[in-house]
Formats: sequence, C-alpha cells, structure tokens
Amino acid sequence: MYALRGYGRVTADPRRAAAYERALARVIGPSTAVLDLGCGMGLFSLFARRAGARRVYAIEQCPVIELAREIAAANDADRIEFIAGSSRTVELPERVDVVVSDIRGLLPLHFDSVASLIDARERFLKPGGVLVPCAESIHAAVVSAPITYESTVGLWDAGPAGLDLTPARRAAAQTLDRMASGDGTLLTEPSEWIAIDYRRVRTISFERTLRWTIASAGVAHGVMLWFESTLADGIVLSSAPDQPPLVYGRAFLPWPIAVAVATNEHVEVALRADCVDDEYVWTWRTTIERDGCVLQRFSQSTFAGAFIDTAKLRS
Amino acid sequence: MYALRGYGRVTADPRRAAAYERALARVIGPSTAVLDLGCGMGLFSLFARRAGARRVYAIEQCPVIELAREIAAANDADRIEFIAGSSRTVELPERVDVVVSDIRGLLPLHFDSVASLIDARERFLKPGGVLVPCAESIHAAVVSAPITYESTVGLWDAGPAGLDLTPARRAAAQTLDRMASGDGTLLTEPSEWIAIDYRRVRTISFERTLRWTIASAGVAHGVMLWFESTLADGIVLSSAPDQPPLVYGRAFLPWPIAVAVATNEHVEVALRADCVDDEYVWTWRTTIERDGCVLQRFSQSTFAGAFIDTAKLRS
Repeated sequence: MYALRGYGRVTADPRRAAAYERALARVIGPSTAVLDLGCGMGLFSLFARRAGARRVYAIEQCPVIELAREIAAANDADRIEFIAGSSRTVELPERVDVVVSDIRGLLPLHFDSVASLIDARERFLKPGGVLVPCAESIHAAVVSAPITYESTVGLWDAGPAGLDLTPARRAAAQTLDRMASGDGTLLTEPSEWIAIDYRRVRTISFERTLRWTIASAGVAHGVMLWFESTLADGIVLSSAPDQPPLVYGRAFLPWPIAVAVATNEHVEVALRADCVDDEYVWTWRTTIERDGCVLQRFSQSTFAGAFIDTAKLRS
Repeated sequence: MYALRGYGRVTADPRRAAAYERALARVIGPSTAVLDLGCGMGLFSLFARRAGARRVYAIEQCPVIELAREIAAANDADRIEFIAGSSRTVELPERVDVVVSDIRGLLPLHFDSVASLIDARERFLKPGGVLVPCAESIHAAVVSAPITYESTVGLWDAGPAGLDLTPARRAAAQTLDRMASGDGTLLTEPSEWIAIDYRRVRTISFERTLRWTIASAGVAHGVMLWFESTLADGIVLSSAPDQPPLVYGRAFLPWPIAVAVATNEHVEVALRADCVDDEYVWTWRTTIERDGCVLQRFSQSTFAGAFIDTAKLRS
C-alpha cells in the first residue's frame, strides 16, 4: 500500500509550499527549463509551470509519480514531462536552467540526497544554472527533551512483566530520532554544525566538532539538530526551534543517560555523518567537562543501533 | 535504519503482554515445544520459557532477531533457538505442541499473516497441537469519524496555493487507514464480518455482505473495523471501541463523501479482502437506502488507491 498520507502531509505544508513557490517565481522565466528532482506529487512542477517555465522534467522513483501525472492534468499544467526512475540513472534530452528539489528527511542528509544533488548538478544543470535550494546548513544545540527521551530511550527501562529489556534501551540510545512535537528546551546557544553549498559541494560525508558552554542549567538528554535551507537569495526555509512549525520536524541524538548540567560546564560533541551505501551513519562522541575535569564521556553511533541484517550479509 | 520504536510500542503494550503471558502459561508444560512465529523482540519466547517450555523455536525474518537474542541472554532465557528467515521457507528439527504468534497489523489480515499461520499449522504443529491465538474475528460498524476523515480524505479539498488536488483525494478515499486516536462514534450496532478458526481455516481471502439499520443519526464517514483475538479459552484480546486502548489501533474504510444518515435508513456494505501477492486488497461496495430507495452507492477498492508501480510491471 502506498504511503499517501506521508506525501500528503509534506505537500500540504503551507509554509513550505509558499517558500518554494516564491523562490521558483524569482528564478523562472519564459525560456527556463526546470528539473524537479524527486517530484513526489508534482507540486514544484506545477509552481514552475505557473511561473511560466518553457519545460519541466519531473523525476520520481516512487509510484506516486502516477498521481503526479493525474494532478498535473487536473491543473491543466502542460509541458511537464514525468520520468519514472532514479535521477542517478535516467537521462534528460537537454540541460536545464533550474534544478528544484526537496529530497531531505528530518535533515538534508537523508539517504543519497547530497549525492543525488551533486549528480544532478554535474549531469543536468547548465553552467551557471540555479539550484533551489542553493545551500543548506545544519544547526545543533544541547537540549532538554524529556518527552522525546521517554518515548525512545526511557521506554525500555521497565519491560513488561518484569523482563530486562536493556539491550533494546542500548540500541535506542544509538538512534537518530524525531523530536516529539512541542518538546525541547535549549540549554546552550545554537551552533552551526555544517554548511553545504550545493553549487560547489563535492563531499557527501561531513564531520565537525562542536563546543558549547551550558547557558541554562537543566537535565540534558542529548543534542537537537535542525536545518536552514536557502531556496533563493533571501528566501530561507528553516526548521529552527524559534520558527513556526514545518512538516519536517527536528532531529534528536540522545545520550545514553540523562545528565544534569550546570552553567559552568562545557559540552563538546564530535559529530560526523558518513554516507555508507546510500544511508547516513551518524556518530557522536560527547564530553561533558567542568573546570577541565571530564564529568561524562559518551561514544555513540547509529551503526551500533542498527541491527546487522544477516540475510544481507550473506548475499 | 531499523524501526526500533515501532517494535517498542508493540512490545511495551501491557494489556497485550499480560494476555499473551496468561494464555501461554495455560497451554505450556515442562514437555512443551513452542514455535514463536514472527518473534520480534522475543517477548513470547521469554514468556514460554518462563512457563517452563522444554524448547522454543523463535522465527523472525527482520533483523530485530539480533536484538531478541541479546534480550534473551539478558533474561537468562535458555533453550530458545532463534531462526532468522521467513517461516514459509525455514525448517524445524521437530514438530511443536504450541504455535504462538502476533503477526497482525491493524487487523489480523495483514500481508501473508493467514497464509503463514496455515503453513505453520500444516508443517510445524503436532496433530492436536495448540495455536495461540486459536481464532480471530473482525467486526465492523458505520462510523462518524470527522478527525480521521479530515486527516486522510478531507486533507486534499484545499490544495496549497490554489492547486486542484482532487486526484489525491480520490486515491485517499480508496485507502484503508488507521483511525485517529480518540476518534469514531458508532452510528450502528457492531456486526461480526468474518470469524477465522486457525485450527481449520484453508482460505486466505474473505468476503461477506453486512447490513445495518442506522441507530443514531449523524454524519457518517465510512466503516470502522476492529478485531477480537481468542488467545486461549476465555482469554480474548480485543481492539473493540468499548475496550481499553491497545497498541494496534482500529481500521477505517472511508466513503468518498461524508453522508448525513437518519435512523430510518439502511447501510449495506459488500466487503471483501483478497490476498494478492501476499498483500490484502480491500474492496467495499456501499449502498445507503431509505424506504427501499437508494440514496447513495459507492464502489471502492484499495487496488484503485494504490499506484501501479511501473518498474514492477516491467520486471
């Protein structure tokens, strides 16, 4: 069965739709050819046609492309060519002036999102062509997130019928998860972790160490991550905690235990995201210090939280 | 990445765990060999060992079986043999006295659940052996479900930026969905749609026509479905609307439009579930009548709501 509701929630997000439509209206003229990369229900293709694009190529590997075709017909949107398949393997009859995409998940690093954008830039975009978004950054802060923590890691502290489920707790503490809606109090200032300029980026794995001073004392549960996406000059779509809600939500990297932190303490997180086999493996090594003394040290990775698929290993 | 949280929600459900533990304690003795079919995190295997089973075979095709192994070790549960793979293709060294399973989704008809139980009964269960559950029934009623309807079908009435998304609305109205939590007022008495006795069942597709008289006037949005699972004599796990919540939720088959119904009206639904390619296709043909006159007639199917995967057709 097709996850129509998931596409629906994304397509219906009004702040996302308005930002993309404004950005596309700014960069599209009557001679513009557009590639809608991972078109889903075809929303951006319709915006591109409405902005007057000469031609739109809409690539989508999921069966939802059939619905995108019907929706385009219902909106009298001509000159959209739908192409079923992965953008990494299909060909286009011409190079385009604009590549528009929203192939992120919770964060811009999602499956092969960055590799797909690099591939589309190299194979489909004219020299000097425009990417929408053109750049994205990921930001982080130490967070108190009791609701999220309880529904992911804490869930396992009491197994049903007196069973010991600590192995599941250990796995849950090595998982990048979605922040529960409304949860999350920042205990530090936000820091930019990485910035990706899609016009130039060549790497798909990212690593940088962040260091914070605790700004508000509290019980810290881990690190919250969000993104800022620059769709065009001055048009930014941000999932930051001080922004109105977006469909994407925010990401949470838990610690193995909740830690009471005080304002004279420092938190350092060496955070990396390695694209392995078209999936991101997240690694976060945390040190909590006071007066130069280490209070806590954690080393976590989503690689340890995922289970080895023995069937896959055999093949 | 592995959907640990999904398994967690199911494993942690206290009403489910208690009912299965009670049922297993009743049917297991010191000489009992047990098959835990689709063991997930291995909860039922642990209950079976605790009840004194001589031997437990725990089959699971998802990588979560690695976690089940660790959890069994953490609970000193010996004599459990974990077998990675599909129960339809693996072999066991002996026939068992008890087959325990919970391979349903929203409803007991879920992927190849019934076919897997028939296969396990025929290949793995001793003559006269016990199935837990031994029987399940699915029940239905006409329902007013404004919250569910709005989040599935109604979502598409207003497309963002004035776009016409009625093709997506049409697809959403052909989808079996989960009832929103707390939503759903019955407008008719419940009816049993089908009863499956796993000791005898040979068919995996089901069809029966239901007929109701409207008991409370209201705005009807479709049909709600739930199940009753007989785990052992007198031990029933039910997702009925008058029961405390269970992790499974309830299923909703929408109508294409909301219909105001009155107490002198009748609703007839010819409902079928056909197992096609190890997935259930649901078809529901509805007639709403007053004084022998047809007021509305709908013909819906999840086959029409799913998109044809053109890549699959080609292969």
